[in-house]
Amino acid sequence: MVRRRTVDEHAGRIAALVGPTLARYETEVVPLAAALGRVTSEPIVTAGPMPPFRNAQMDGYAARAADLRRTPVVLPVDGVLPAAAATARSLEPGHLLKVMTGAPVPDGADCVVPIEQTLEEDGGVRILRGVEAGAFVREAGSDALPGTAVVPAHTHLAPRRIAAAAAAGVAEVAVRRRPRVAVIATGAEVVAPGAPLSLGQVHDVNGVTLAALVEEAGAVVVLVDRTSDDAAAFEQALLRAVAEADLVLTAGGVSKGDFEVVRQVLEPLGADVTEIAMQPGGPQGSASVRGVPIVCLPGNPVSAQVSFAVFLRPLLRGAVGLPPIHAVPMPLAAAVHSPQGKRQWLRGVVKDGAVSPLGGPGSHLVVAMAAAEVLIDVPADTDFIGAGSTVSVLPL
Amino acid sequence: MVRRRTVDEHAGRIAALVGPTLARYETEVVPLAAALGRVTSEPIVTAGPMPPFRNAQMDGYAARAADLRRTPVVLPVDGVLPAAAATARSLEPGHLLKVMTGAPVPDGADCVVPIEQTLEEDGGVRILRGVEAGAFVREAGSDALPGTAVVPAHTHLAPRRIAAAAAAGVAEVAVRRRPRVAVIATGAEVVAPGAPLSLGQVHDVNGVTLAALVEEAGAVVVLVDRTSDDAAAFEQALLRAVAEADLVLTAGGVSKGDFEVVRQVLEPLGADVTEIAMQPGGPQGSASVRGVPIVCLPGNPVSAQVSFAVFLRPLLRGAVGLPPIHAVPMPLAAAVHSPQGKRQWLRGVVKDGAVSPLGGPGSHLVVAMAAAEVLIDVPADTDFIGAGSTVSVLPL
Repeated sequence: MVRRRTVDEHAGRIAALVGPTLARYETEVVPLAAALGRVTSEPIVTAGPMPPFRNAQMDGYAARAADLRRTPVVLPVDGVLPAAAATARSLEPGHLLKVMTGAPVPDGADCVVPIEQTLEEDGGVRILRGVEAGAFVREAGSDALPGTAVVPAHTHLAPRRIAAAAAAGVAEVAVRRRPRVAVIATGAEVVAPGAPLSLGQVHDVNGVTLAALVEEAGAVVVLVDRTSDDAAAFEQALLRAVAEADLVLTAGGVSKGDFEVVRQVLEPLGADVTEIAMQPGGPQGSASVRGVPIVCLPGNPVSAQVSFAVFLRPLLRGAVGLPPIHAVPMPLAAAVHSPQGKRQWLRGVVKDGAVSPLGGPGSHLVVAMAAAEVLIDVPADTDFIGAGSTVSVLPL
Repeated sequence: MVRRRTVDEHAGRIAALVGPTLARYETEVVPLAAALGRVTSEPIVTAGPMPPFRNAQMDGYAARAADLRRTPVVLPVDGVLPAAAATARSLEPGHLLKVMTGAPVPDGADCVVPIEQTLEEDGGVRILRGVEAGAFVREAGSDALPGTAVVPAHTHLAPRRIAAAAAAGVAEVAVRRRPRVAVIATGAEVVAPGAPLSLGQVHDVNGVTLAALVEEAGAVVVLVDRTSDDAAAFEQALLRAVAEADLVLTAGGVSKGDFEVVRQVLEPLGADVTEIAMQPGGPQGSASVRGVPIVCLPGNPVSAQVSFAVFLRPLLRGAVGLPPIHAVPMPLAAAVHSPQGKRQWLRGVVKDGAVSPLGGPGSHLVVAMAAAEVLIDVPADTDFIGAGSTVSVLPL
């Protein structure tokens, strides 16, 4: 029997093929308003101090604390400074200037008396209680000094980080680029979602599912196509795809049957099509067309999903800067059997900290896959794992 | 001193104002290809069995197990069934039909012999090893029977659930509707992101940040506007907003200053504008204009973010079907002081299972807010909490 390639060997091959392309276009600049959820590729730095000028924390009166030692005291008011006060003002000793929250605190003032501690009177304002020097004054730079990274590099742009960038006066940010991915589902038996079925036909699951997986992994779907087993049709779809995408995923047509269009078109171009020692997901391939990497997944919908999780998700998430999804050890709630010689990815659900297999190993069980939360990783050299043993579990 | 409204009282008021509007438009139907991340409002049910017909699990030969009792045996092959075989075939006893993975298994056959266990010969195919009845045959309905909910109601449409819906022949799904939200930032001092600043001016943080918060909470931003303190300009923005949105958020203009445009325009229309016993986020308001709820947040960017997390995030996430973000108890790594009479939301970071306050209470500290992971909830009647005490912590 031919020795099959292992999962790790194939993962290494796919990473070597796809990695350099994804690394080549690492950064793009996007408007801040479109940056939610992206990952910074550089620190976001404030050029000026934050806040940009000394300003009032409350609506009230800018004053000199020295004038407020004895209260109550009535002092004259020289005017009002709105938040957008456009001219610098100075405060004369013994006077007040009314300030709105956020207004520049005038030179000469060292505190703000909240409006609640005052009363308007003829000829001025009565300060009922004084405040300390510095009270209710926000100093320029008290949040960040010029040159501060208000958001570090490699950081997820949550709304509060977008806020800090906006406050720093930044309108565009450098973020990790989202790889552009095309998906081509193949198979004469595959018809459009929702179309009526004749005998032997099934609905296209891979097109919509791989597109969703690509998007969930942070990349952009530029094209979803569906072709029959006709070589010319597949070739045309492939050329459209490589013209637009950084990476092309195909589904189906890499098995041992008589109508394997992906294999038929790509093998003469030097594709690597082989059987991996894994289940589901045995038949796999890869190629490069006009410099664009092509990753060929099996056509079975569960196999395609498992293959994506194992071979592609880590690469795409890494490229956009999303954190890796690590496998975790977990006890098995029920024993599992597995064919020896193939690494098995069983669908599982987690309850009370233990994982149970769900729905059997059949790779046509898309409903069981939908209900699963994890893949249970059964090593190739294992044919039985007892309940209570620890297994490695990959979150979906 | 006037008793201020509590956070819970105001949260109840906002829920009573906004809840019925969000509930009114609960469901919409979207194409499956646009359903990633949405939440089902009804179960997705398969009309037919899944798989739809009995089909081959492997490329190989459909056979009768009874004909394979003694192997090797050479049997005649009556033809090939591709996966898309459009006509039903029957298998004659003692014969084989070649089948591709996914092809209908012909009547009369009860098993599939994998191609790896066979050899082509003159006059037929040599079966090297037999298989049991049922081997490598996927029965119709073995994944799901007609009428099965392949995805339950109230379920997040992850890619694998989109796969199950596609396989069930569903092209459109009923999902929780995403509320349409408009954002209006106010303030004469506020200028567009990235624009140069004069004295007294600051960049608009609230527009881009509230839009990001709305989107992160699963809702749709239909409009982001920015107006000065001019009442007519704000009124116009408000009318545009209520024409398009289910909910309008305003930022700024609800405090006690002399230039409070939101208060000035909305109070004559019956707005509720008040001071909440919380910090940051004291000044808050709400109104209803042409039947559209208006929630008025304070203008300070940290106050606006905290107010959104406390009053709006639960309502929007609930409306779209996202799980609630619950506060969790956690030990304090360092003591905190807090003014009595106001519920304080301190920014915090979590390390080794304990929370530390970050950057002080000042509501102008947008950079500290950006670095925070949680809000530490300090009750209104508390002015000090010692290190090691358990506090309630709200994830951001």
